[in-house]
Amino acid sequence: MRDIRIIGIDPGLRRTGWGVIDTDGVRLGFVACGSVVSDYVESLGARLRQIFDGLTQVLARLEPAEAAIEQTFVNRDASATLKLGQARGIALLVPALSGLLIAEYAPNAVKKTVIGVGHGDKGQIRAMVKCLLPRASFDSTDAADALAIAITHAHSRSWRRLEALALGAAP
Amino acid sequence: MRDIRIIGIDPGLRRTGWGVIDTDGVRLGFVACGSVVSDYVESLGARLRQIFDGLTQVLARLEPAEAAIEQTFVNRDASATLKLGQARGIALLVPALSGLLIAEYAPNAVKKTVIGVGHGDKGQIRAMVKCLLPRASFDSTDAADALAIAITHAHSRSWRRLEALALGAAP
Repeated sequence: MRDIRIIGIDPGLRRTGWGVIDTDGVRLGFVACGSVVSDYVESLGARLRQIFDGLTQVLARLEPAEAAIEQTFVNRDASATLKLGQARGIALLVPALSGLLIAEYAPNAVKKTVIGVGHGDKGQIRAMVKCLLPRASFDSTDAADALAIAITHAHSRSWRRLEALALGAAP
Repeated sequence: MRDIRIIGIDPGLRRTGWGVIDTDGVRLGFVACGSVVSDYVESLGARLRQIFDGLTQVLARLEPAEAAIEQTFVNRDASATLKLGQARGIALLVPALSGLLIAEYAPNAVKKTVIGVGHGDKGQIRAMVKCLLPRASFDSTDAADALAIAITHAHSRSWRRLEALALGAAP
């Protein structure tokens, strides 16, 4: 199986984390990660543009083939949900403009893949991402979370491929 | 005072209304209005891209100088707020990418400007928009709402200009 490059995105109005990995269906390879920070003194439109420009540059530079994004946790106050929604709209738009497949994963699916159970704190996720991708160095929790989302997509797509093989579908 | 062209945007994941007017600070002139509809069978990323492409085309064609958008009503369920937030992120991004000034108005400010009081139904807004812009014909409530937002911005900026004149600031 050829390597596929995946970008995971953890959207937020203040910081949007991103993490890029390669996978051949079995092994995972760290490519790069970081976060796009918006300037809180700017207007909302200008901040959304900063997220758009930052993610657009990352996609142009690293050319991932597929994207994965966390399904947002909506049990927060309405104002925070709206802010997150606005940032999430941009995080979905950028890969859509490049024609990428975009997969969405629930937060507990990400935790289950990365730390083995559906609950756990940010520190555990960070430690397991570091263990799965020893070459990774992250500047922020958002970048680690974004790598965890990319890892979840890598596992999910290998698993679907194995199922397809078991059912006698195309390799 | 030179004419200024204003676009009002009423964002929504299914339908995003837009309305463009010209104003010289006193009179209002209808330019065009419509709505960008996203295809609900498509993925979320593809739908946000449809909104992005539709609004980008409107801005390229009509070249408004300023934009106005309704401040979203967040007293709805979290899932609806998130959907609206995602569409609203795109509605703010498109004018921001063109460097437009973007003003935000609360729903009751729009009603107060257009129908004279801070409450009223969609039918009243539609009737008053038709009265203020006799040449306007709208295909949808969203387009009428978007024109109401543009009218609110036209009134607000004339009022601010009058205040500035009264205070002896630049004309």
